[in-house]
Amino acid sequence: METLKVDLGPRSYSIHIGSGVLERVDLLLPHLAQPKVALITNETVAPLLLAACARRLREAACQVVEIILPDGERFKNWQTLDQIFNALIAHSCERDTTLIALGGGVIGDMAGFAAACFQRGAPFIQIPTTLLAQVDSSVGGKTAINHALGKNMIGAFHQPRLVLIDPDSLRSLPERELRAGLAEVIKYGLIRDLPFLEWLERNIEKLLAKDPAALLWAIHRSCRDKAEIVAADERERGERALLNLGHTFGHAIEAGQGFGQWLHGEAVAAGTMMACELSRRLGWLDAGEVDRIQALFERAALPVRGPRLDPDRFIELMWRDKKVRNNRLRLVLLERIGQAAVREEAPLADIREVIASRS
Amino acid sequence: METLKVDLGPRSYSIHIGSGVLERVDLLLPHLAQPKVALITNETVAPLLLAACARRLREAACQVVEIILPDGERFKNWQTLDQIFNALIAHSCERDTTLIALGGGVIGDMAGFAAACFQRGAPFIQIPTTLLAQVDSSVGGKTAINHALGKNMIGAFHQPRLVLIDPDSLRSLPERELRAGLAEVIKYGLIRDLPFLEWLERNIEKLLAKDPAALLWAIHRSCRDKAEIVAADERERGERALLNLGHTFGHAIEAGQGFGQWLHGEAVAAGTMMACELSRRLGWLDAGEVDRIQALFERAALPVRGPRLDPDRFIELMWRDKKVRNNRLRLVLLERIGQAAVREEAPLADIREVIASRS
Repeated sequence: METLKVDLGPRSYSIHIGSGVLERVDLLLPHLAQPKVALITNETVAPLLLAACARRLREAACQVVEIILPDGERFKNWQTLDQIFNALIAHSCERDTTLIALGGGVIGDMAGFAAACFQRGAPFIQIPTTLLAQVDSSVGGKTAINHALGKNMIGAFHQPRLVLIDPDSLRSLPERELRAGLAEVIKYGLIRDLPFLEWLERNIEKLLAKDPAALLWAIHRSCRDKAEIVAADERERGERALLNLGHTFGHAIEAGQGFGQWLHGEAVAAGTMMACELSRRLGWLDAGEVDRIQALFERAALPVRGPRLDPDRFIELMWRDKKVRNNRLRLVLLERIGQAAVREEAPLADIREVIASRS
Repeated sequence: METLKVDLGPRSYSIHIGSGVLERVDLLLPHLAQPKVALITNETVAPLLLAACARRLREAACQVVEIILPDGERFKNWQTLDQIFNALIAHSCERDTTLIALGGGVIGDMAGFAAACFQRGAPFIQIPTTLLAQVDSSVGGKTAINHALGKNMIGAFHQPRLVLIDPDSLRSLPERELRAGLAEVIKYGLIRDLPFLEWLERNIEKLLAKDPAALLWAIHRSCRDKAEIVAADERERGERALLNLGHTFGHAIEAGQGFGQWLHGEAVAAGTMMACELSRRLGWLDAGEVDRIQALFERAALPVRGPRLDPDRFIELMWRDKKVRNNRLRLVLLERIGQAAVREEAPLADIREVIASRS
C-alpha cells in the first residue's frame, strides 16, 4: 500500500492506494467521528461491493445505513440528492455520521455534496471504484450536482477525511468506463507532467488490458499530480484551473447531448482535442504536436471530436460554464505539451471554427 | 451609523447599523467583486423596497438581476432555491456575481445557501428587513433550507461580505413579525447578557411601539452579542450552540405544525419557556425566575406555551434536530438568568412532562 497526503492544513487527508485496501476497515475506523456511517453507492456497484463492505464495517461494530442510488450522470441531480437526505433523516443520522461514497465520480460528487450540506456539514470518505474517480474526482473536495442548464453548477468544496483506492475494484469495470478514466490520466501528462505523458505513450495498451502494475502506477502518479495541485490551490484561484483542460468544451458536450449520453471522460477527450486545436490556431502547438496528442487518445479508443451540436448552442453552453469572469471565457490551453495556461484572449471566431471543425 | 465587526480572519466583515444605510450604495460597492449583483427578495418586500434599491445600484453602474420569491417559511425549500439558480443561470450570473438578500430570515437563509452552492460558492451580502433577521439570522453565516422532516436540515456555513441594517425598514413591518423578532432579542439577555435583559424589562413596550432609539439600541446590542459569539466559535463547536436556547423545542413546533403556521420567533418563545421549565425541574431556575421570564414574553405578546402536538411526535421531531450526538439530545438550558449551558442529562420523562405541561 502506498500513501499520499493532500496537504491542506486542518483539512489534510491521506490517499491510500493498493490492492486490497477496500478490505482494510482498520484504515477507516480512526477517521469516524462516531461508529455510524452511511454507505452510499449505486445499483451497479451495490451487487459487486456493497455487502462485503457493509459486513466488514458491521463486524467492526459500526452501525451502517445503506443507500443505493440509480446509476448514471443523468441522475446527478437534486431529486437523487434528496433520496440521500431522506434516507439520512429516516435513519436518524447525525451531524457526526460519516458519509462514505462507494462508487464512481457521480456517487462521489453527490455523496460529497450531501455531506457538505447535511446539517450544514458532515464528514465523508471517498472509496472510488472507477478509474476516473480513482485518478481525479475522489481527490480534492470538489462536490456538485448538475443543473439542467449546466454541469456541476450547484456544489461545494468539501474535502473528504480519507480516500481509499483499491485498483482491484477495476476488475469489473466496463471497458468504456476504463477508457473514459484514461482521458483524465492523459490530462495530467498534457498540463504538467511530460515524463508521465511519455510513459503513457509507452504503456497505454497495458492500461487498457488492466495490467495491475501499470494501473497502480498510473493511479499513483495521477493522484500525486492532483494532490500537489490541490494543496497549492484548494479553491481554484489559480493553478487548479489547469485541471479543467478540455472541460469547458467537454461540459458543453455533456449538457448539450443530455447528461449521461457521453461519459464525462469521453467528453473531456473530445474537449481536450478542441482545446489543442485552438492552441494550434493561437500559435502555441504545431500540427505535429496536435497529431501526437490525438494519436494517444485514439489508441485509448477515445473520441477526438465532439458530437454534432449547433455551434451557437455549443458556445452558449460554454459561456454558462463556471469559467466565465466579467463575461470573458477563460479557457485552459496548451502552451506546449506538458504545460497548460489559462487564457482569455482566444477570439470567439476561432472558438467557433474549432467547434465546427472538430464536431 | 454604527459599525460592528465580525472577526473571522479572512472571512471578517462589517455590520453597519443606522437609519438610512439602505440608501448608502457607497457602503456596498467596495464589496462587489464585479459590477453585477442578483438582488433576491420576496413578494412582500419587493413593492416596498426593491425598486429603490435596484435603481440606486443601477445608478452606480451595476447590472442588477432581480429575483422575487414567494413569501414565507413554507417556501424555504428546494423548489424555491431552484428558482434562484434558474434565474442566476438564465441571466448569465458568474461565480463573482454578488447575491444580495433583501428581506427577512427566510430570504437571507435561502439567498445565502444559494450563494454557498452556486458554482461552488459566490459572494453574498445581507440586507435584513425584519427585526428577526436584523438581530439574529443575518449575522453569522448560517444558511439553510428546510426539509419536510426537519428545520434547516440542509445548508452551509457561508459568511456574508457585509451586513447592512436599516431600522427604518421596520416601519412597515407587521406587528406579529416585530414580536417574533423580540423572541430572539430576549434570548441574548437570557443566555449571556443580564444587563440587556434588565434593559428589555424596562423598555419592551418602547420596542413594541417601534421607538426608533430603543430599536436601534436593541439591534446594536443583539448584533454585538451575536458577533462576539460567532467570532469565538464560527462552526458551532462550543459556545455558539447557546444561541439555540428554545430552538430544539421550537423547531419541533415549526415542523410539527407545518412550516409557516407559527413564525420562527413565536416557536422560539414557546420553546424557550419549555427550556426554562425543564431548567426548573433540573433545579437550576426557581419558579420565580421562570415566572419572570414568562412575564417578559407575555408583555411582548409572544406565546409561552406550544400548540397541541402529540408528545411522541414532538419528541421524535426534537430528536431529528441537528443537536443530537451519539443518540443523546443536547439541549440548551438556563443555569440561571443570563447564563446558559448545553446539557445532555435531562431525563426523557422530564422532557415529555414539560412538553405536556406547556402545550
